[in-house]
Amino acid sequence: MGAPVAIVMGSQSDWPTMQCAADVLDALGVSSDARIVSAHRTPDRLHQFGTGAAGEGFRVIIAGAGGAAHLPGMIAALTHLPVLGVPVRSRALSGMDSLLSIVQMPAGVPVGTLAIGEAGATNAGLMAASILALADDALAARLTDWRAAQTARVAERPED
Amino acid sequence: MGAPVAIVMGSQSDWPTMQCAADVLDALGVSSDARIVSAHRTPDRLHQFGTGAAGEGFRVIIAGAGGAAHLPGMIAALTHLPVLGVPVRSRALSGMDSLLSIVQMPAGVPVGTLAIGEAGATNAGLMAASILALADDALAARLTDWRAAQTARVAERPED
Amino acid sequence: MGAPVAIVMGSQSDWPTMQCAADVLDALGVSSDARIVSAHRTPDRLHQFGTGAAGEGFRVIIAGAGGAAHLPGMIAALTHLPVLGVPVRSRALSGMDSLLSIVQMPAGVPVGTLAIGEAGATNAGLMAASILALADDALAARLTDWRAAQTARVAERPED
Amino acid sequence: MGAPVAIVMGSQSDWPTMQCAADVLDALGVSSDARIVSAHRTPDRLHQFGTGAAGEGFRVIIAGAGGAAHLPGMIAALTHLPVLGVPVRSRALSGMDSLLSIVQMPAGVPVGTLAIGEAGATNAGLMAASILALADDALAARLTDWRAAQTARVAERPED
Amino acid sequence: MGAPVAIVMGSQSDWPTMQCAADVLDALGVSSDARIVSAHRTPDRLHQFGTGAAGEGFRVIIAGAGGAAHLPGMIAALTHLPVLGVPVRSRALSGMDSLLSIVQMPAGVPVGTLAIGEAGATNAGLMAASILALADDALAARLTDWRAAQTARVAERPED
Amino acid sequence: MGAPVAIVMGSQSDWPTMQCAADVLDALGVSSDARIVSAHRTPDRLHQFGTGAAGEGFRVIIAGAGGAAHLPGMIAALTHLPVLGVPVRSRALSGMDSLLSIVQMPAGVPVGTLAIGEAGATNAGLMAASILALADDALAARLTDWRAAQTARVAERPED
Amino acid sequence: MGAPVAIVMGSQSDWPTMQCAADVLDALGVSSDARIVSAHRTPDRLHQFGTGAAGEGFRVIIAGAGGAAHLPGMIAALTHLPVLGVPVRSRALSGMDSLLSIVQMPAGVPVGTLAIGEAGATNAGLMAASILALADDALAARLTDWRAAQTARVAERPED
Amino acid sequence: MGAPVAIVMGSQSDWPTMQCAADVLDALGVSSDARIVSAHRTPDRLHQFGTGAAGEGFRVIIAGAGGAAHLPGMIAALTHLPVLGVPVRSRALSGMDSLLSIVQMPAGVPVGTLAIGEAGATNAGLMAASILALADDALAARLTDWRAAQTARVAERPED
Repeated sequence: MGAPVAIVMGSQSDWPTMQCAADVLDALGVSSDARIVSAHRTPDRLHQFGTGAAGEGFRVIIAGAGGAAHLPGMIAALTHLPVLGVPVRSRALSGMDSLLSIVQMPAGVPVGTLAIGEAGATNAGLMAASILALADDALAARLTDWRAAQTARVAERPED
Repeated sequence: MGAPVAIVMGSQSDWPTMQCAADVLDALGVSSDARIVSAHRTPDRLHQFGTGAAGEGFRVIIAGAGGAAHLPGMIAALTHLPVLGVPVRSRALSGMDSLLSIVQMPAGVPVGTLAIGEAGATNAGLMAASILALADDALAARLTDWRAAQTARVAERPED
Repeated sequence: MGAPVAIVMGSQSDWPTMQCAADVLDALGVSSDARIVSAHRTPDRLHQFGTGAAGEGFRVIIAGAGGAAHLPGMIAALTHLPVLGVPVRSRALSGMDSLLSIVQMPAGVPVGTLAIGEAGATNAGLMAASILALADDALAARLTDWRAAQTARVAERPED
Repeated sequence: MGAPVAIVMGSQSDWPTMQCAADVLDALGVSSDARIVSAHRTPDRLHQFGTGAAGEGFRVIIAGAGGAAHLPGMIAALTHLPVLGVPVRSRALSGMDSLLSIVQMPAGVPVGTLAIGEAGATNAGLMAASILALADDALAARLTDWRAAQTARVAERPED
Repeated sequence: MGAPVAIVMGSQSDWPTMQCAADVLDALGVSSDARIVSAHRTPDRLHQFGTGAAGEGFRVIIAGAGGAAHLPGMIAALTHLPVLGVPVRSRALSGMDSLLSIVQMPAGVPVGTLAIGEAGATNAGLMAASILALADDALAARLTDWRAAQTARVAERPED
Repeated sequence: MGAPVAIVMGSQSDWPTMQCAADVLDALGVSSDARIVSAHRTPDRLHQFGTGAAGEGFRVIIAGAGGAAHLPGMIAALTHLPVLGVPVRSRALSGMDSLLSIVQMPAGVPVGTLAIGEAGATNAGLMAASILALADDALAARLTDWRAAQTARVAERPED
Repeated sequence: MGAPVAIVMGSQSDWPTMQCAADVLDALGVSSDARIVSAHRTPDRLHQFGTGAAGEGFRVIIAGAGGAAHLPGMIAALTHLPVLGVPVRSRALSGMDSLLSIVQMPAGVPVGTLAIGEAGATNAGLMAASILALADDALAARLTDWRAAQTARVAERPED
Repeated sequence: MGAPVAIVMGSQSDWPTMQCAADVLDALGVSSDARIVSAHRTPDRLHQFGTGAAGEGFRVIIAGAGGAAHLPGMIAALTHLPVLGVPVRSRALSGMDSLLSIVQMPAGVPVGTLAIGEAGATNAGLMAASILALADDALAARLTDWRAAQTARVAERPED
């Protein structure tokens, strides 16, 4: 069976950011499928991906892009799967443009947006897992363990 | 059985915004339970709600707040259910403070953030529905219909 | 023959802004065709419009949208006609989100962006006219006259 | 015959950015003429350039500047040729000042503004080409090829 | 003899703001001459005004404009008289665009910029007076008196 | 007796910033106790710390965090001790998100917020000292000396 | 004995905001003394107030101002009493200028800054009370009661 | 006779920026006197300097500071000499805080503000010279020459 989570990004250069989503999903035992889909340079691939994603067996889509970041919103327009958006840091405006382009969607077509950059990509992976865990008790347990381990790793004191 | 979606908000004054989430869920045949949980004024209620939400039967939590909006992130810290955040417009900064306080979560604790204001609340409802629809074909069909109707309502020309 | 300028907008509510483009084109004797094309609510209409615009005989496309304004950039991805973008004022962020979503396009797919709001829509009309005027001496003359009249209307003193 | 596109910039230091416009035009077989015209340090040269540009045979003007970037708007005030503006990144404010100074033109005098920095300069070149292509089928074909090649260069997967 | 202070503005609609400069100058016994000079709609008038201002007998120039506010900087490029800039509030961005367009001048051509809106216009008048007062002891005394009266008008307690 | 000032921070990586608070308190002879309390990763530790802080003998709490910085406000919700907040610089938004997340607290639960970064941490230490000094004349004298020394260290001329 | 809390503000027009501080202090049984001290229009009064505040018996100073809000920081430079700053909403920039002018103090001179506007003024009052309560058990009890009452006033459900 | 221009700055670390003002004044044959006056760390020196500046023979004051930059405005409150403000780049906010703290002065006390950073310091020097040149024909001639030389230095083409 195919991976339940698609990780799509607007450009090759987004991968160092988006890989954080793949990594945390991998740590949680969730397979993902990473693809480059540029809303602007490959609009046909976008259309194909968006309309076909549910049919391919994806359950959640994570989409990352920078600048005038249209990829997450356009995918959300083409599927009713839950779409999570990751604003990639941009050179001039540090990702504030990416953030507003992704989060300020009009009523009717939602994108669940995470933080700018790597933290956001990691969290997109975690949120995808929490969505899948609603119907997968084993994953829910692994997610609980992952979070408990995260909690345990927080030292008591900064000098520790 | 209880409602699958909790709609929590930091203050009574957030209700005109957050009601949009309840309304769209209602239109989709999804029941929701709206509560006031102030991260700052009722921290014990926050703790109780966050740790008990999964046990109460909720599947998705929608949390809205304005200004230094800590409610969505603090709930996300207390549950592994998916949490959707709605930045409520604030008086001085029009919700830019609410947005950054909700979306810029550190790696490890995700909040899927929607747009500032009513559009964001409506979209939180839609996204909650799309998550629930992953395991509910009838809801998936209603969601598809809702979106088709939305598409059909778009006039061809502005003078129409 | 069809209108040389398409004026498309993401929603009915953008018309009071975008009408300024139609008005100035009308004043310059250039016909235009105004349509609602929502990138998010009518993605198929978007695809059809974008890929078919050149074939319909349009020479320049003016696209206006607000918030996470993806319409101008997505049309630009689907056509090689010149695309002019108009950021419509948004409720919470006054059009700063619209502006960044339209102007910050990645290398490869340009949108010539005008000012936020009515001034931007008027200027999109004027810029479309200046593009068409490159191959239409009569229009060039009307444009020159229009600008001369504009100059003449500027009073010498504020009390005048 | 002279070059159809003028590339003007406020200062020598803008050239590394603006060269991207020259490069993409060159790749498309469109010649351009790059000049330094400082609105503030050479106002007479500005006046001469702006009023003489059409007579020199230019069809489109690309103007880049940073900070309080007045060059694009002031040229637009002096010519009815289409003017494209490129906000150059500034040291303190990363080009947000450049962007607002260029894009927020009042009704009556348009500047089609592109993204901050190199991407914007490349896109100014592409947009100039798309304008010239309206009356030049060979250029239109080269532009179509250029965009097809750009599409083809997008890898399927980030690890490719 | 002519007025020592010119108050120029980009548009008729700037007068309610710029009148504050005229009023405070009037209160200080300094005559001023208010004119509309649009950098964009009347570039020749701009050139004439800027190059001729010293010859007309002006000693200080106050220039106000909104949005992509090029007037103060362009006048400063054309004269070596001191130029004071007043950012007029703009509709979408509340004058932040006006402020950055005026204040962020490159090295070589200064504009002394005051606050956004009426306060800035009043202060431009006061600053012009303080410059003229360097060579006018009677004006210096009136300015001192004006400021003393301002100080005296500040109540001790808010309930007073 | 325990330290009168608690210095808590959301993550190990905040220590280089927050150490400035510890250092200035140390210089003033005030002991402090530095701990890591993550609002998001250790919500139970947060609850324990916040509700127990007064009982542990703390008099003032300094809390620093970055991004969606909820720690200071959540502690303030759990204690009636004075809470001082330090916005730590964040990677994408340089601490503007941290600042707004800390300072924009709703009426009812105050956080006294200091500047972004090291200066803010130093000042949090100084402010804690000034609060403790209200009931500690020796500390008040040391604080006065510290400030006098600071004043004395300011050179007369930059070339000195 | 005099009031322990001074509430100073830059202008009469700040009183509707700053009165919230007086009101909450009054509700807590803490007397306060409200004065207008303009850093810019009454610099001598500022100097006198700042250097004399401790001698007058004040224990905490609340200072509110808008725009280029120098009052809180300048008072903090003149006293070692704890100074709390309230950014008053400004016309053009909604208090963002006030906030940055107050909070971004350099290392050495702290101002504990509260939220923009009325919420910030209320919270300045509460924070002053929490500081005074460190040495006043009866006030500590009243503060605890006040907060408990605030918690009790939060309804369970928005429709209540 | 003393220098006609005072260059004051809030801290030693502002000198690399403010030296640009001294340098351009030196190039124009205008002597200046550079001093460190910290509004916050040396408030008495501030008071002395501000009230004594006119008596010392200064004609124009250039004041630079960063962050919550109160120095220019506080000097303007203490003298009726023209005060020019230079916002020094700050670490977290790149000088946006400095700019707003200096430029947004209330009606009654003007500061003529220049650009953030070195360009602003150079321009403060030039503007001081243009003010002094109103009563000094030889300086006016040198300023005209300086600007002519600046114009002459602008190359015609970027490849030159």
